[in-house]
This record gives sequence, structure tokens and C-alpha cells, in this order.
Amino acid sequence: MNNFIITISITVAGCIVLQFMEGIILGKITAHELAKKQKEISVAEFFERNKHILGFGNQTRALITSVKEGVDNGLDACEEANILPDIYVEIKNHENGECKVIVEDNGPGVIKKQIPHIFGRLLYGSRFYAIRQSRGQQGIGISAVVLYGQLTTGKHAKIISKVAQDRPAVVTELAIDTNKNRAEVINKDTVHWDKPCGTRVEVSIIADYKRGKRFVYDYLLSTSIVNPHAQIIYREPDGTEHIFERTSETLPKKSVEIKPHPYGVELGTLIKIAKNTKSRKLSTFLKTEFSSMGDRTTNSAIQKANLDKNLNPKEMSREQFLALHSAFKEVKIMAPSIECLSPIGETLIKRSLKHETQEISPEFIVTASRPPSVYSGNPFQVEVGLVYGGKLPKEETIKILRFANRVPLLYQQGGCVTTQAISSIDWRRYGLNQPSGKGIPSGPAIFLTHISSTLIPFTSESKEAIADVTEIENEIKLAFRECARKVQYHIHKEIRRAKTREKFNLITKILPEIAKKSANMLNKPIPSLDTIITKIMDVVWIEDLIEYEKIKRESIQTTLIGESPEQQIEGTITKSRIMVINYKHTPQKFNLYAIIPEDAVVGTVSPKPSKVSNNYIKWSLETIPPAKKIDINFELAGLEKGDFDENDLYVENINPTYVIGADKWEGN
Amino acid sequence: MNNFIITISITVAGCIVLQFMEGIILGKITAHELAKKQKEISVAEFFERNKHILGFGNQTRALITSVKEGVDNGLDACEEANILPDIYVEIKNHENGECKVIVEDNGPGVIKKQIPHIFGRLLYGSRFYAIRQSRGQQGIGISAVVLYGQLTTGKHAKIISKVAQDRPAVVTELAIDTNKNRAEVINKDTVHWDKPCGTRVEVSIIADYKRGKRFVYDYLLSTSIVNPHAQIIYREPDGTEHIFERTSETLPKKSVEIKPHPYGVELGTLIKIAKNTKSRKLSTFLKTEFSSMGDRTTNSAIQKANLDKNLNPKEMSREQFLALHSAFKEVKIMAPSIECLSPIGETLIKRSLKHETQEISPEFIVTASRPPSVYSGNPFQVEVGLVYGGKLPKEETIKILRFANRVPLLYQQGGCVTTQAISSIDWRRYGLNQPSGKGIPSGPAIFLTHISSTLIPFTSESKEAIADVTEIENEIKLAFRECARKVQYHIHKEIRRAKTREKFNLITKILPEIAKKSANMLNKPIPSLDTIITKIMDVVWIEDLIEYEKIKRESIQTTLIGESPEQQIEGTITKSRIMVINYKHTPQKFNLYAIIPEDAVVGTVSPKPSKVSNNYIKWSLETIPPAKKIDINFELAGLEKGDFDENDLYVENINPTYVIGADKWEGN
Repeated sequence: MNNFIITISITVAGCIVLQFMEGIILGKITAHELAKKQKEISVAEFFERNKHILGFGNQTRALITSVKEGVDNGLDACEEANILPDIYVEIKNHENGECKVIVEDNGPGVIKKQIPHIFGRLLYGSRFYAIRQSRGQQGIGISAVVLYGQLTTGKHAKIISKVAQDRPAVVTELAIDTNKNRAEVINKDTVHWDKPCGTRVEVSIIADYKRGKRFVYDYLLSTSIVNPHAQIIYREPDGTEHIFERTSETLPKKSVEIKPHPYGVELGTLIKIAKNTKSRKLSTFLKTEFSSMGDRTTNSAIQKANLDKNLNPKEMSREQFLALHSAFKEVKIMAPSIECLSPIGETLIKRSLKHETQEISPEFIVTASRPPSVYSGNPFQVEVGLVYGGKLPKEETIKILRFANRVPLLYQQGGCVTTQAISSIDWRRYGLNQPSGKGIPSGPAIFLTHISSTLIPFTSESKEAIADVTEIENEIKLAFRECARKVQYHIHKEIRRAKTREKFNLITKILPEIAKKSANMLNKPIPSLDTIITKIMDVVWIEDLIEYEKIKRESIQTTLIGESPEQQIEGTITKSRIMVINYKHTPQKFNLYAIIPEDAVVGTVSPKPSKVSNNYIKWSLETIPPAKKIDINFELAGLEKGDFDENDLYVENINPTYVIGADKWEGN
Repeated sequence: MNNFIITISITVAGCIVLQFMEGIILGKITAHELAKKQKEISVAEFFERNKHILGFGNQTRALITSVKEGVDNGLDACEEANILPDIYVEIKNHENGECKVIVEDNGPGVIKKQIPHIFGRLLYGSRFYAIRQSRGQQGIGISAVVLYGQLTTGKHAKIISKVAQDRPAVVTELAIDTNKNRAEVINKDTVHWDKPCGTRVEVSIIADYKRGKRFVYDYLLSTSIVNPHAQIIYREPDGTEHIFERTSETLPKKSVEIKPHPYGVELGTLIKIAKNTKSRKLSTFLKTEFSSMGDRTTNSAIQKANLDKNLNPKEMSREQFLALHSAFKEVKIMAPSIECLSPIGETLIKRSLKHETQEISPEFIVTASRPPSVYSGNPFQVEVGLVYGGKLPKEETIKILRFANRVPLLYQQGGCVTTQAISSIDWRRYGLNQPSGKGIPSGPAIFLTHISSTLIPFTSESKEAIADVTEIENEIKLAFRECARKVQYHIHKEIRRAKTREKFNLITKILPEIAKKSANMLNKPIPSLDTIITKIMDVVWIEDLIEYEKIKRESIQTTLIGESPEQQIEGTITKSRIMVINYKHTPQKFNLYAIIPEDAVVGTVSPKPSKVSNNYIKWSLETIPPAKKIDINFELAGLEKGDFDENDLYVENINPTYVIGADKWEGN
């Protein structure tokens, strides 16, 4: 026992000092000694050391992040200025692992004195304070690329910007002084640039082009699919040029800036807004600083909080704010305006999924779109899609495609609320393999989610995964459950239709044979079997067919100063034909609804519909006698071939159990 | 066709203006208009809006993050000052969803004028610039809790700090002015505090105590296991007190601050260091600013770069730095000192895993520790452990325990490089279920990883997941592969030992019977069977047994000013007994090695070993005649009961195929 060394602790000045087994005495270090080391950290220094947080964790990701930040920035700038985006991306790959990333847009440009701030300073921008959907929300993205470039190559970034046709372009070479988080302008010049306006960013970075190549292409392709109003040209180092064509001449619905909504606004934020308001009365303060606050809601909130509406918000106590904050929750306040959001829409979701399943001929694609909701005062909306079957691999875990504010998310899938929501649903009853009913299921399926929000709660500045905000998780779950129900419904409908078709084939084949033979035997004429068939079938049979027709739409371009030549843009007309056959023995009269995509434009419809809303066409059908059929036709424009490839039909004023090919109309 | 509305694009001033279908003309917005909105974002404002990035995404996590940041801070402060940590955590839960989180330590305290900076300002601290292992590395954690508190409750934080026994404690109430990212001191006072020194932080936050409760307990328990030198007392809202006792009187090896290592230092960082150096010559610059740079390495790097060693580093061009930077890679430079790291050690890893498997009696626990490595100039080290079998659930995905710099990571498992590394290994041949050989396997196992580094590359400021840095991922894979090999080896060894034991039992049971009967029949004395048994067995059989004995270690506490009473601390002696029996028919003489944990202290050993290193004991065994056995005993101290529960034995100078219970010594 005596060959063990014993640890001795001695209390000096009340704090324990340790004698280590090696016999070294480590003295106590005082707060004063520690204080000498404490100092401020500039945000640029912080990210210089923690570049992985910005998405530059390895050389493959560094490449994609650089392209992504550039393109996101370009798209945002164009959309803000109501310009159809033309984005040009070029990568030059040098031997020493250095890549030059060039991203050019035709946006409004950046005025000279703002260039050093926007590109040479982290946490600077215009989109941070605005409550509306945009890609960049942090004021970090593009300057992070500049920072990473200078960190890895020591080279300066080059920015070319032109703000008007009649002004020269400004060329700025800059670096970031990370100690101060300020730009160091190395060189300034003006040049002639053919473009009427726009911005071009050139940054040299250390990156792994070989590995990153595929992801850059994928990112640009996905971006182009959900941003059909943008044209993206991508030039690879070897000169190969990929052109992702613009397929829509319409900018997406512009998201409008709104004020914060009282639901979910944090107490601290409320106090802060009150501190900075120009309003001198509580009632005007509420009406001017928040959205959805009319006279009635304002008064009712103030009453519930037991406050005086003439109170000066700057002089209110914490307790008064607390009362007001609690009152918000008790008053029914209108949901925030969804003007600030710009969802992708079901058509583009379908198109994305179609693209992923080219040549795989999946069994079906279903989508679901949730109504807008709010978390911590921020409006958001969830849209999802699901492809199933076909040649999709059956053994592997399902593929998840994620988008946020129209930007594809390529990394950090495991850390994303999307994955968490999908993993928490038991998919086993939908034909997918999932041990213990939890986790990412395996099976022949692709899942897509798009979250649009005025503030996407990304888990980090690299904007690759969405945090597990309960409200968002619930909405994703609800959306996928809806999809799952559609999948089940779809499977059932298919089975039912197949069964009826079998019966129908049998009847129409065998009955005439019997009739013929019987007639022969009895030496009588063959009787008409229509009524007998209808008696046996006893259903209304609805079948549909969709065809596409190419058309040339003329886009008139009046050239004033520029030199855009006249263009002919091709379009597609989707033609849907629905046959309704009455195989019942009594005449039938009912209403038929055909669901149409919101972004489709309705063309010729026959017979005359009784209503055309933005998501359905309704016909009040004339009485159909037994064994008679009527044809229904309608045309849709504004869609690409395949966007609309199956009718979703509903009936009203008829027992839906007697209808094959349509379901009960539940209102829409 | 004519009822389709045609989109018309008109080019005005060269930029496209769109006429929407609704007929509204959205005008172009110019760069000047956009510039008005661009402004600076303070880092506090940024995180106020993006609190999820800091780990406050929902109310459950907010609670855990608050406790975690407080405790991490307390542990770091104590360790920096060489004080054995006594941490006190208390949560008060109020009805309105408000919790008060109190964390107190016995660290060195914070001097008065630093309090507003450390607790009321984001990006401020002492651990950011130091290259050594610590929990806090960002200068964000604790002030983020203060920020979250004020955002959600509008209340100020209260800090009590005492820096010396003979000074009063300072009480500071503060808020954060988020526009400026500066503290607003609301109130300052001094009070008497019994503690000799320490810091106490009280923050009111909105949190979900009901859901968060379990995680707080788990986090504190896990923290206590891997930090056995700390005592943690946790008082729940209802008064229940949990005491996580200190089980080691020794502070972990203190991590020493080092200079950056030339391998992996970014070019930009190199240029920056050169800008700020006091050295006027390239050679002294390299020797003073970097670690592992002696005269020879320095000269050789300068030569390879084709530079003059008398160059002034402040006047070097980018190209010269580039040459130097490239030269670093061509010169063999000693690995960075591991002094800056403080790994957990295999014993504590085993203990953590044991704790997780209480009453589950797993089949075995294996651990593996990799040598230190470097990513981007930052030293890091990976340790892993694996428990297998027993009553662990067979159907569920394996449980993953993650630690970084001795801090348990509870969230974002899916986004962590650990998960990625585990998922990329094909575990099917190790008896785990894993569809297509990818993804998190299912089966009765728990995996543990600990990464220690001077800079853990967390994916975000919430420090919950580690970024996918290639070097780290590879090390984790290597460590788990080693574990997996040990698992296989273990299984094989067990099978082989069981087989031999069966044979042995058979022989020792049947042979004497036969001998007895034969002797009876022949009326002769029963012969000695030893030589026959050895002939049939033809092996050296090694068996071992481990026992524990409680002892009382006296810890002498010389009370100078404080009033700590004398304490008796209990300890455990691990006693290992190894029997070597020669069942071969020739005498055997060989070397035996027993592996011992690095943190164990070796006590009595018999027979006298030929060598005791820090991880093994070696015996050069005397010749053992056939059918004879020798006993080997050794004692270990500094371990808890169960830390060492199985001998890992190796043999040398004997054909290992004839040895049951030990393997071939391959060097260590």
C-alpha cells in the first residue's frame, strides 16, 4: 500500500491549490491575471477562425458556398429591383488548388460608396431589417466569400458595379481588415461595361473543384427549376457552358415588407420597438409599429392589459409591457399578411420532382401546401411534395430535397428540422421500410420540402439546415401527413378503378357473346345491351386524358436603347379531355369539379363552366341519360409539358360511392 | 387561343420592366433607392433575431443551453485558475413559463470592470485568442444567455463576483444594448459573500422546464462523469437536490497555450501574423510566432521558399508569403505539442459507457484512442468507445454519445461529423443491422466519441454539432474501425476460449473416469493423468480474475484561513490475479504483458516485473514445467470499481497459437 502516491490538497486563502503527483505546485491564477487576456473579438476575426460556420468547413463546400452566396445575392438584387434575373457564373480552376469564382448579375448594381460595406464587411446589408421573404437575411453571405478568399489565397476581391446605362462601371478591389471588420479598398477605377446595369464579383479561393463540380451543377440546376424566371449561364473551367433557360417571363409574386406581428413578438423586442418608436401614445404605437392591428384589436389589447391608451410607450414599465405582451395572446388578431411570402407553388414543386425522376417513371407525384403560419412573430409557409414508385431504388433510404426561400439546401440534412419531422412520422403503413417506425424511411420515394419565411431560422450562418422550431416542425408534419393521405387515397383509387375496369371489361366482352349466342339460338335479333350493362355496372364512369400542344407565343420587345432582338418564345397548351359515362339505370345530374394549378391560365373550356376559380373549374352538368356520355374539355396555359399530367376530379350532388374516377367534393 | 393573356416585356433604358398579367407596371428600383436601406447590423441584434443559432430555438433547448453555458463557463474559469470546481446550479420555475437559472462557481471571479464586457457583450472573452483546449472558445456563450433572458422576459441579469477572500463581492445588474452590443449597467453594489472567491450568474428566461428537466439532469450527469474532478450540485425547482460528487482530487492535465502550427495555417492568417509581428527578420518571425519551428526547420523552410532569412516579414509580398506557405508543406515539421490538449482518457470513457449501461450487463466495452492530429493548424484528438450486447435494444438504431472538450453534446446529432463518420462505415459484418451498409446502424450498441481540440469546429455558435472537417471525420472512422476490430477480436477470442474450455472440461472429466475404471479392472493404481492431459490439450492456458478492495486514503487539508474540515476520501484498489498453466508437454518460457490504463497507479506486483511502462506491465516468466502453473498478481490504484474489469494480455517469444487467453505482442 505504501507505494501509492497520495494526493495532498492544501487550502490557501480559502481556494484549493493542488499538488500534482509529479510534485509540481500549480499556483492559483487570479481574476486580475485572467482579465489581462480578455478582449473584444471582431466579428470578422470570429468567422475567420470559425469559417466552417459560414459553410467553408472543407474545400468542396467552400466552392459551393461561394457560388451559392454569389447567385443568391444576384437573384435577390434583381428581384428587389423588379428585373428578370440573368445570372452568369464562371469558375476558373488553377493548378495549385485555387479557383476563381465569378458571379455576374443584371441587377441594379451597388452605388460606389456602399461597395466597401456590402462586400468588405460582415453583418452589413439591407435585407436583415426588412420583414419579407428574401434569400439573404443576414448581411454575411457575400462578404464571407471575400473573407474566405483572402484567408486562403491572400488575394483581393474584385467588384464591378454599374448602376445606370449612362454611367461607367466602377471597379473596386478590396480586402477585409478583420481586426476592424472594415473593408480596405486597394484600388478603384472605372471601366466601360456593355451591360446596362449589374454587378460582377470575382473572388479567388482555395477550393476542391474536382469534388465540388457536381454539386455546383446540381445547385444551379435546382435553383433554375424553382426560379423559372431566372436565366443562369454557367461556364466551367474547361469552357463548357451550361445554359439554364428562363422558362417564365413573370417575376414571382414580389414579397412585400411587413411590420412585426404581435403574436410571437418577444417581450424584449416589444420593449425595444417601444424605445425607438416615434409614436407618443400606446394606441398609435400599436397601430403604426405592428401589422394586423386595427382600431378594434388595438383597443381590445389595451383593455385586456388594463392600460391607458394615452400612455407614452417610452415611459412604460416592464410590468406594463408584460401585461400588454400577455394581452396579445388573449386577443384574436388577424394572421399576418402573406404578402411578405412568395411560395414556390405546386407546379414548380412537381416540376422539381419530375426532374429528379426523369426516366424513372414514378407511379405518382403528390404535393401539399399548408396555409401560412407564424413562429416568434415571423410568418412562414410549408410546401411539400412526394414522388413514389417506379424505378426509384427500393433498398436505399428515401431522398430528401430541401428548399428555403427558393434556395436549394445541399448540406446538413441530418441537422435539419425537415429530416426531424419526416423521421418522426411512422411511414410503415405507406409502404416504406422504417425500423421501429422512426428515422428516415427506406423505399422508392423522394420527399421535397420548401419553407418560405420572412426569417428562415437557419441553424447557422451557412444557411444549410433549419432549426427545430416547434411550429415549423408541426407544419412540415401536417403537410407530409396530407401527402401520405393522398398517397393512400391514390393507391385505393387505383385499386378500385382497376377492379371496376376488370368487371366492366368482363361484362362488355361476355354479355354480347351471350346475347349473340342466345339470339342465334332463339333466332331473334341481338338485343341492345346498354341498359343491361348499366344495370350490372351501376356506376358513373369518369375517365380523362391529357395532351400537350406546342405553341409559339410572341414576346414583343420594343427596343429603346438596348439591342435585344425580337424573340419567339415557345409555350405549351395542356389539353384535358374528360369523359363522363352514365352506367346507372337512371338519368344523372350533378356538379363536376376539376382541380387546376394556381399558376395556370385557363383557356377554352367546353361545355361552359358554371365557375372558374383560381384553383378549380366547376361544371353543373346537364342531365345525362343512362348509357350516354358527355365530353368535357378544357385548356390550360402557363404550364410546361408534364406539369399537369393527371386530373383531380370531384363530384357534388351525387352519391360518390357510385362514381368511379372522381371523389366527393368537400369544398375548397 | 385568343383568350390567353400575353406577357409583354419592354426594355426600358436597357433594363427589363415587366408588365404583369394584372396590368400593374412595377417600376425599376435603382441602386440609390436600395442603398438607403443598407446599414450595419450589430452582432447582438443579429443574434437577437437569430437566437436559434445560439441554441435558443425553442423553449426546451433554451433551458439546457442556459444551464450549459453557465456550467461550461464555471468549469473553464476554475480550471484556468487551477481550482477544483464546485459548481452549483439552481432552477426556479415560475408559473408564467419563466425560469430563473442560477449558476455559481468557486472560480477566481471576474474583476469589476470586466463584468459588463464578459456578461453584457457578445464576442468578448479570453479563450478566443488562446490556442489551447477549453470549453468556451467563442466569447458568446454566457452573454447569449443574458441576451435571451432580456429578450424573453425583459429582465436584467444579476452577476455576483468575488475575486479574493478579503474583498467584498460585487453585485452587478445589467442588460445588453443590442444596437451597440454593449452592456447597460443598471445597478452596482457590494455584498458580503461567504465564498472565498467565485462567480454567480442569475438570469430569468422563458423556458419549458417540464420538457427540459430531464435533459438538464442528463447533461449535468454526463458532465460530471467526464469531469470527475468537479463537484456539481443541482437544485430543482421543488427543492430536490442532486449531488454529483467529485470522484477525483486531481485536476485534469492542464492544457497549455501553444502557438499556431505551420501545417494547415491559412495563407491569409500567415500574412496577418506577419503584419502584427514584432520580429524584423523572417527567421526570427518563424521561430517566435509558430510552434515546432526550430533552427533547422526554419532554415529549411526558408530555403525551400527561396527567400532571404533577413527579409522583414512586414515588407514581404503576397508571392513571397505564398512561396513560404507552400514550403511549409514540403518541410518535415514536428507535430504540434499535445500539451494544448486534454483528452478524457480510456478510463473515463469506459466509466461513461458503464453508466449508460447500468443493469444492462453488456457483453463488452471497447475503447480506442487516436494519436493527436491537425486540421487547419489546429491540433485535435479523437477518442471513442463502444458497448455491445446485453440487454441493449436490438431493434432500435444505436445510441450515439458525443463529447467535445469534455462537454456532452445533446442536440444536432444528425448534423454532426461523428454521425457522418459512423454512418459511412459498413457495420453489417460486426453484427449490426444497416440497410445498404450506410447510415446509422441498428442493434444492441452504444457508440461514444470525444473530440478534444484547441478549436472545435462547431457547425454553429450553439456548439452542438461538429462540422464535417475531413481530417476529423477520418480520425473518427479510424478510431471506430479500431474498435470494430477489437469487437471482432473479442468475439473470436471468446469463441476460441469457450471451445478450448469445452475440450478441457471433457478431458478432465472423462479421462479420470476412464483411468479409474481401467485401473480398477486391471487392479492397478490410478495413474497420474497430468502428462496425458497436457499432451491432449497442448496449450498454455491463461486465466484471470479481478477483485476490488475499498481503502481509505487520507487527504491532509491544512486549513489556513478557510474552514474545510479534515476529510477521509475513499478509494478503490483493483487487484488482478493471472494464472498461467502449462498444458504443453515441454517446459515453456516466455514474456507476458498486461495492459493497464494510463491513469492508473501501479501498486504491488508479483512476481517482479521486468518492466512497468505507463500502459503495460511486462514479466519475463521463469521456465514453467509441463502441467505446472504460476500465479501473477498486480494492484492498481486511482481507478474506481469496475473501471478495469478485464485483463488484456499479450505474449512474446512463444507461438501464440498455442496460447489460450492472450495474444501475440505486437509492440505498443
